[in-house]
Amino acid sequence: MAPRDSAATRKRILDAATAEFAQAGLAGARVDRIAERAEANKQLIYAYFGSKEELFDTALEANVALVLDAVPFDAFDLPGYAAALFDFAVAHPELARLVRWHQLERPGVLDRLPQTAKSNQRKLAALIEAQAAGKVTDALPPEQLLALLLTLVHGSADTHAGGADPLAVQRETLIAGIRRLADPG
Amino acid sequence: MAPRDSAATRKRILDAATAEFAQAGLAGARVDRIAERAEANKQLIYAYFGSKEELFDTALEANVALVLDAVPFDAFDLPGYAAALFDFAVAHPELARLVRWHQLERPGVLDRLPQTAKSNQRKLAALIEAQAAGKVTDALPPEQLLALLLTLVHGSADTHAGGADPLAVQRETLIAGIRRLADPG
Repeated sequence: MAPRDSAATRKRILDAATAEFAQAGLAGARVDRIAERAEANKQLIYAYFGSKEELFDTALEANVALVLDAVPFDAFDLPGYAAALFDFAVAHPELARLVRWHQLERPGVLDRLPQTAKSNQRKLAALIEAQAAGKVTDALPPEQLLALLLTLVHGSADTHAGGADPLAVQRETLIAGIRRLADPG
Repeated sequence: MAPRDSAATRKRILDAATAEFAQAGLAGARVDRIAERAEANKQLIYAYFGSKEELFDTALEANVALVLDAVPFDAFDLPGYAAALFDFAVAHPELARLVRWHQLERPGVLDRLPQTAKSNQRKLAALIEAQAAGKVTDALPPEQLLALLLTLVHGSADTHAGGADPLAVQRETLIAGIRRLADPG
């Protein structure tokens, strides 16, 4: 098989795995359905990705990479960054479901992914810069500010999936909250 | 069967259901295991609670009632309320798992529970009072403030289940965040 075909096949499998795991979680997912949806051989899936657990982890990693690429962190405009991340999460409800299942069924694994750790380091460095420039409060340590910000964004997008409030209200609430949290005063 | 025995049996079943659904979710839960753990007859479980879905909903409702009783809302001390709710969630990790599974497998149902809606109304009334007394910012509408507060608390307790930061750090972060959000200025 040519390398190009192999990459395309891997991508098809990861897309199918994302859809299946987002729908059914790790325990509920069927590798047969992933194979069918990806038009790939089940044995090939195991050859590429190992176990069903490893396929779940790899699908999650691929989606985390997608989010990090699509929504660049902006420490000098935290409300804008939060809004963009919220919009992305709302437009891709399968990602939030994937993360939720993963937290329930593979607790602790997400935080140990190298890309998550590296991306958080870069975010912290940018926040320290924005604090030094007086654009962001220094009443909170940057780690705390980042934790609060990400908790609010993901929590808001998640609540939206439950249908609590109209989307626009939740988005405004989120932006107002981040503004208050980050206000340099 | 005497009414008292019946109530005790219902409670044993709900406790067993809470443990089983928290562990395995709706799809993964086995009513056989619940029956065994509760030392109850499987047919009796269906007679009391209807379907597995209804048992899941009822177990969730019972646990929501438990939280509402254990952690009374205090609009005049929002950081303290947030800390108490965080502590309760951390001490009862099965409740957060139960809610997460429920959001994934029964989306939207939680917000339609009468007790959730009634409790939110009481919280809003108390917040409006605290705003009028100048104890809480009125820069945010009470609905927004409540949404941000609950999102932060549940998100923080949830992240803790993932083991991101030491418990004490997350607790301090949460309290600092709520303080900034609610500050009357």
